[in-house]
Amino acid sequence: MTSITTIDALERRIKAIFLHCGMSEVQANSVARVIAAGERDGCKSHGIFRVEGVLRTLKAGKVQGNAVPKLLETSGAIVRVDGQSGFSNPAFDLGMPKLVEAARKFGLAALVVNDCTHFAALWPEVEAITAQGLAALVMCPSYATVAPWGGSKPLLGTNPLAFGWPREGDTDFVFDFATSVVARGEIDLHSREGKPLPDGWAIDAEGEPTTVAEAALAGAMLPFGGHKGSALSMMIELLAGVMIGDLTSAESLDYLGTTGLSPRHGELIIALSPEKFAAGRPGNPLARAEVLFDAVAEQGARLPSQRRFAARARSLSGGIALTSAHEEQLDRLLTLGLDAVR
Amino acid sequence: MTSITTIDALERRIKAIFLHCGMSEVQANSVARVIAAGERDGCKSHGIFRVEGVLRTLKAGKVQGNAVPKLLETSGAIVRVDGQSGFSNPAFDLGMPKLVEAARKFGLAALVVNDCTHFAALWPEVEAITAQGLAALVMCPSYATVAPWGGSKPLLGTNPLAFGWPREGDTDFVFDFATSVVARGEIDLHSREGKPLPDGWAIDAEGEPTTVAEAALAGAMLPFGGHKGSALSMMIELLAGVMIGDLTSAESLDYLGTTGLSPRHGELIIALSPEKFAAGRPGNPLARAEVLFDAVAEQGARLPSQRRFAARARSLSGGIALTSAHEEQLDRLLTLGLDAVR
Repeated sequence: MTSITTIDALERRIKAIFLHCGMSEVQANSVARVIAAGERDGCKSHGIFRVEGVLRTLKAGKVQGNAVPKLLETSGAIVRVDGQSGFSNPAFDLGMPKLVEAARKFGLAALVVNDCTHFAALWPEVEAITAQGLAALVMCPSYATVAPWGGSKPLLGTNPLAFGWPREGDTDFVFDFATSVVARGEIDLHSREGKPLPDGWAIDAEGEPTTVAEAALAGAMLPFGGHKGSALSMMIELLAGVMIGDLTSAESLDYLGTTGLSPRHGELIIALSPEKFAAGRPGNPLARAEVLFDAVAEQGARLPSQRRFAARARSLSGGIALTSAHEEQLDRLLTLGLDAVR
Repeated sequence: MTSITTIDALERRIKAIFLHCGMSEVQANSVARVIAAGERDGCKSHGIFRVEGVLRTLKAGKVQGNAVPKLLETSGAIVRVDGQSGFSNPAFDLGMPKLVEAARKFGLAALVVNDCTHFAALWPEVEAITAQGLAALVMCPSYATVAPWGGSKPLLGTNPLAFGWPREGDTDFVFDFATSVVARGEIDLHSREGKPLPDGWAIDAEGEPTTVAEAALAGAMLPFGGHKGSALSMMIELLAGVMIGDLTSAESLDYLGTTGLSPRHGELIIALSPEKFAAGRPGNPLARAEVLFDAVAEQGARLPSQRRFAARARSLSGGIALTSAHEEQLDRLLTLGLDAVR
């Protein structure tokens, strides 16, 4: 049994749950919006599934549900928002207009979000920036579950890296990937289903390659692409952890004490203005990018995020299908609030 | 038979060859310096081996050996140098002090190098920036030899991505890698030695996986890390080609008509100030980074570039060993100039 809902209605419903659980308007708004967007785009792991994770982190006292993020004074091309121990999304929403303004003024600018809890994909933030005609590069640490290349113990996070390029009249060029071979949820899934892991995903607690999901959960995941992915993940720890004066993945796990809640750390968002960068040079950068995209399509390859954009188009025209399990879960959370959360 | 030379002596010797071949002082200086640095660091493919490649590109009329790069007016946080169709290295050297100044002022800044020929590794530029206490992110296209993920034809370059983080009292954290599985030289090497390629390196002209080096050279190389490496490579085409108003890898190959010469295109260098980014936050970012590096070392893993830094240390203390083939080649090039170049 499934029912059909609109994106707006789903967002309102999720927001009502968050408000009932004591979250402030600003937190509930931003967090509900990204979760509804995840469900809209067919990203099940970032959709309704996440509502309970948000509430678990709230109930554990690891995030301030009523935090009001604070915009600090902009220094040069660096815009900074103090998340006040709330979620990263309202902090991003607060800083975004200033980031756009600074990127247009200086050619490139950075938004630093500090002291926040992060649970969402990065593409909503990337797309908020590309919608303004800017390119975006976004990264953040996570908590230590990934061994560095050649190592044997969890030290790095799944450390996502996301990028976007604005397009006119088509969905933007957007990618958003973990710098681990897979997201940790994939290992959990194999564990629940009793399926062996493919080679190269993980090592056990002794640092030896393993295809046993439970051994991997007790050991460490591996970075994608060998030493190159590992180097990228280190870069993310340095830039979006150490450099912005916020937690590394190892520190975040220490703070949280578990990988069962959403991690606390900061986030680094860089916006670049194609208009400013291309000034005085031949050709329009947005038009020239289309030549590249056409060449990809001509050989039958696909741009990143196409499955997600197809799901979005279906949701926008036909609504979002909710299973009866979804319906029950949302009803239960709305009625019982934090009492419904284990 | 080998002889021992100092780094400075090797640099002077290479510079003399370039001057004899009609290169200007500014071009010969910068190009000789990065080639000597490559040999010093044991990067054979970026060392003396490259001298002849530089001269071949010069002889083909695809680079202006007497170009004098021009510093254009800085716009916001974007510093721009017109390479005037010379090599990228003197253009970088010219813009670097302004980039450092802008990054210290704004927190982050970009150096755009346009209209230049590029043949060198990116780590010399990364290390010039980290030596100033800044973090650096550097990227450039190449020429089309790599198929996008899921595609069948060359479209992307080997598109290197390099990053550096400054350290006090130790070699900086530096990585510099191709976003293809391997550099094209590796395929050439397998071809010359008649060795099969490992799986996953390349496809043939029909887009089918191949382990035959010649078939790979007629087909395309593959990006590292599957769709993720492909996405990164596309990002580099967009930011360091299209956005800065310079050639993409496909356009560069069209211009050059061969992969036997060094490609012409632009380069994007971003510098970030840890001091500015960490301002007002707890902890010193340089000290906190060391905690991360220590944790890598504690589990027996190595930071990137360690083999290169070990070779550098050996060269600095014991000089650089030149084979008799090296000696003959350098003598021949100095005597005959461009006539020695096929």
